[in-house]
Amino acid sequence: MTENIKGIAASGGIAIGKAFLMTEPDLTVTKASVANTEEEVTRFNEAVNAAKLELQKIRDRAEVDLGAENAAIFEAHLLVLSDPELIGTVEGKIKDESVNAEAALQETADMYVAMFEQLDNEYMRERAADIKDVTKRVIARLLGMEVPNIGLINEEVIVISKDLAPSDTAQLNTAFSKGFTTDMGGRTSHSAIMARSLEIPAVVGTKNATATIKQGDIVIVDGDNGEVIINPAPDVIEGYVAKIKEQEAEKKELLLLKNKPTVTQDGIHVEVAANIGTPKDVESVLENGGEGVGLYRTEFLYMERDALPTEEEQFQAYKQVLEEMGDKPVVVRTLDIGGDKHLPYLNLPEEMNPFLGFRAIRLCLEEQTIFRTQLRALLRASEFGNLKIMFPMIATLEEFREAKQMLQEERERLIQEGTAVSEDIEIGIMVEIPSTAVLADQFAKEVDFFSVGTNDLIQYTMAADRMNESVAHLYQPYQPAILRLVKMVIDAAHAEKKWAGMCGEMAGDPIAIPLLIGLGLDEFSMSAPTMLKARKQINQLTQTEMQQLAEKALSMQTSEQVKQHVKVVLGI
Amino acid sequence: MTENIKGIAASGGIAIGKAFLMTEPDLTVTKASVANTEEEVTRFNEAVNAAKLELQKIRDRAEVDLGAENAAIFEAHLLVLSDPELIGTVEGKIKDESVNAEAALQETADMYVAMFEQLDNEYMRERAADIKDVTKRVIARLLGMEVPNIGLINEEVIVISKDLAPSDTAQLNTAFSKGFTTDMGGRTSHSAIMARSLEIPAVVGTKNATATIKQGDIVIVDGDNGEVIINPAPDVIEGYVAKIKEQEAEKKELLLLKNKPTVTQDGIHVEVAANIGTPKDVESVLENGGEGVGLYRTEFLYMERDALPTEEEQFQAYKQVLEEMGDKPVVVRTLDIGGDKHLPYLNLPEEMNPFLGFRAIRLCLEEQTIFRTQLRALLRASEFGNLKIMFPMIATLEEFREAKQMLQEERERLIQEGTAVSEDIEIGIMVEIPSTAVLADQFAKEVDFFSVGTNDLIQYTMAADRMNESVAHLYQPYQPAILRLVKMVIDAAHAEKKWAGMCGEMAGDPIAIPLLIGLGLDEFSMSAPTMLKARKQINQLTQTEMQQLAEKALSMQTSEQVKQHVKVVLGI
Repeated sequence: MTENIKGIAASGGIAIGKAFLMTEPDLTVTKASVANTEEEVTRFNEAVNAAKLELQKIRDRAEVDLGAENAAIFEAHLLVLSDPELIGTVEGKIKDESVNAEAALQETADMYVAMFEQLDNEYMRERAADIKDVTKRVIARLLGMEVPNIGLINEEVIVISKDLAPSDTAQLNTAFSKGFTTDMGGRTSHSAIMARSLEIPAVVGTKNATATIKQGDIVIVDGDNGEVIINPAPDVIEGYVAKIKEQEAEKKELLLLKNKPTVTQDGIHVEVAANIGTPKDVESVLENGGEGVGLYRTEFLYMERDALPTEEEQFQAYKQVLEEMGDKPVVVRTLDIGGDKHLPYLNLPEEMNPFLGFRAIRLCLEEQTIFRTQLRALLRASEFGNLKIMFPMIATLEEFREAKQMLQEERERLIQEGTAVSEDIEIGIMVEIPSTAVLADQFAKEVDFFSVGTNDLIQYTMAADRMNESVAHLYQPYQPAILRLVKMVIDAAHAEKKWAGMCGEMAGDPIAIPLLIGLGLDEFSMSAPTMLKARKQINQLTQTEMQQLAEKALSMQTSEQVKQHVKVVLGI
Repeated sequence: MTENIKGIAASGGIAIGKAFLMTEPDLTVTKASVANTEEEVTRFNEAVNAAKLELQKIRDRAEVDLGAENAAIFEAHLLVLSDPELIGTVEGKIKDESVNAEAALQETADMYVAMFEQLDNEYMRERAADIKDVTKRVIARLLGMEVPNIGLINEEVIVISKDLAPSDTAQLNTAFSKGFTTDMGGRTSHSAIMARSLEIPAVVGTKNATATIKQGDIVIVDGDNGEVIINPAPDVIEGYVAKIKEQEAEKKELLLLKNKPTVTQDGIHVEVAANIGTPKDVESVLENGGEGVGLYRTEFLYMERDALPTEEEQFQAYKQVLEEMGDKPVVVRTLDIGGDKHLPYLNLPEEMNPFLGFRAIRLCLEEQTIFRTQLRALLRASEFGNLKIMFPMIATLEEFREAKQMLQEERERLIQEGTAVSEDIEIGIMVEIPSTAVLADQFAKEVDFFSVGTNDLIQYTMAADRMNESVAHLYQPYQPAILRLVKMVIDAAHAEKKWAGMCGEMAGDPIAIPLLIGLGLDEFSMSAPTMLKARKQINQLTQTEMQQLAEKALSMQTSEQVKQHVKVVLGI
């Protein structure tokens, strides 16, 4: 029987296929006495070590297939298995209570999970989820069972699951898993983020998909509209197949623009560039016709490791990106760590409001050794391409001056040491804090360029945590207030003959792009797969018309008004 | 021997007196077996109940002497003693291990404290401190000892302590305790906040004052400069006595301005008003010559209780304030709860970034029953004085319209019910979110007034949590970016013939006041004890001159430049 389930559109596109229900094995643990506790402890340790090896493999595979950002989660899992307190408690329980390893682990894990979950704190709940996930893996080992392994799927399917743990999505082979649905989750949940990064259609938060769908049912996942259609009628399938073909044709057509410039109808050239996280990402930038890298997030160099990266390691990474990009510009953002992004080896204090805390340039200006090492690596790499350096989270001119001063000092030191350093490195800042947008005219006298980081700028301007679902409605990119701030930044740059770019999600948004063209933005940096679509759109726009559109938007009262206005004017 | 200790200036003024060292009794617990565990549980329960009674007394006394805000902390302590999990664990331990109550409690508390402290989370660390404080109180009872009772001091002294727990400061009698120093703490620590609210000089973070100072030493606490002078030479004492006299004379002189208007040299009248938290605070407003209440924080009505206040309870409170203020304006801010301010009975989820979360108007627009009850109480009270209603944390025009709509609906309902409601209630908003300042021209068409909440506005504009010491240097009231936003708000109000006030700390700051007069601010709302000083300063200023000062400041680059400029121009 045909049935439709509504969920949350987590990742765009359409997939049709047979349902593969992820069913978990029964990992119920029976408590039992053991005579030889030494032996039982050994059995436990062996299971832990086996689970560790498995996790390391998963992490390595995730790093290759999905990139460093996605692999980082397994570090957390490995940390759980290396936690002497957890392991010690289990071992103690086995010895003191002469109990089997499964029961000792289950009881200990339950205690920690209950403790963390009770705390009602997002960070701690994530820890609780980590412990649950890892415990399952070890208990399965102890019971001689297999946890369902998404990586073993060898035919084209749609994965139907209650939830997908990070260890599941990390094994997802997109050659076989064409799309998925989960009962739980929202647009910012782990599985949704992974689906977008894998570019496979996904609908999350379906609530009862696993209860409704049977193994082998034919399922359509409509990731554009957040719909799951079960056993659709043939004409429905036909309709969706046509849509898929349309989307594929569109993709092909876009590829024709790969080596074309980005120029408006009235001849204004702007730059469409990409945001990247690791040197591996350059491939996709070039494949999608990127005119540069507008944001190279260097955090991943520092993550999933036990210690800071050396100057040489960093140099190699920067050099690789610069060389592969040739003479195209590469804007490298210096370390934006702290806040919600932790480095276990830095041991930063937990903060009440990490987004308003000690992070990015604030931390770098204090932890000078870390910062200067990065600056040296960047300066050394500057000879191998078209490098621009950008400081994140700049709130005051003093911060920029201090950072620039350190860069200058390291440059002089390198030159004295006989190292070649490029003469034309532009030095700019992220504009992601309201004060900096408001004072952009003063900043423009001293920086070489601006790049507006809309994700944070919107969050601070609206005082709404962009990760918090309760205030998600206030995260409004088209807010006239946001547009006014963006205008201040662009106007300030142009008054001093500098350029202004944008590297937040807004830069690739089809509603925002016409407004940004109207405001005079020079550079649009976005995720690589979005670039060609953006180029196509920009090529069809006329700047003088968009100026009128933007002017009107600036005088409007609400985000919704602006959105409707753009839609009406552009007929989208 | 004379000795000087530097610390953190936590509360202004100078105090001279004999040192009173707060030394703690030895509360070391010896573990022992008990034969009759039932009896031991009873003994434990009796100690808990006695401690509860004591805490209730302390709370009540704190509420009378120090106000509701300060008393709230004891609710947290009482909650600890009413926590069935904690109490149950101790009782279980006594029964299962046949151990004495002291040891059972100590071990249980240690476990919880270790668990919470380990979490490295500010909120949880506070909980750990609560548990420690309460445990001491119960163990002292069980051991038949007295914890040092600051309330028993009966001669004029300077209190010297490692730290002052909330239960200490709540008992502080300012007739005897003329000032204090603590080894620990910073400007925003509990003891510092209490000292300012009690208006007694205090220096915190002295690190080694308790180790250096001996019982009975003569000590000067210089709360203006963050200095502690031990056994000063007679001429030093004389110098400080002269300073104290000067400060007292200044206070007397200020009182002459009590019933005078606030007018600049060139005849511009502005309003100096007070921020209050409870009806009790009105007394101090009138004593200090307040021309109105610029901010009545209604949160305290909702705090330290088990359930929401009824409409009638609220009505009585609002009516009392309005009646006592006569025809002077009273700006009541609707409920600003959520974020860091918790109501145990509302059961809001913990947030990752509470300052960017679901709070104030965001919560009220969802929890309509709570909001409408408050609006009804306010409308009913409106007949008894000069009421103005203000919505907090407004980020979008939609929010204001929605809140105003509800107010309108409740007004109509009341009138239908035959209740009298004033016809001239002004309806305004707090401007504390950058978006609202940037879009103030649009807001000004619909609101009756603005009140700039600088504490939050600065925090969001600079993306710096004002409670986080690591980013305290970014909390800059004189930032040109902040001044520009304030100017946008004032200009927008005046263009629509509305008024603009300010109710953040900045409104009472002697460096900021000249700038704000120059920008054209109409109303200055501050803590009651600051008002007369502000009036005196304003009366000496000339607005046209301050306009030039402000204009210059708006074109400056850094907070420090602005500060120096104001100091130089005004010779302060």
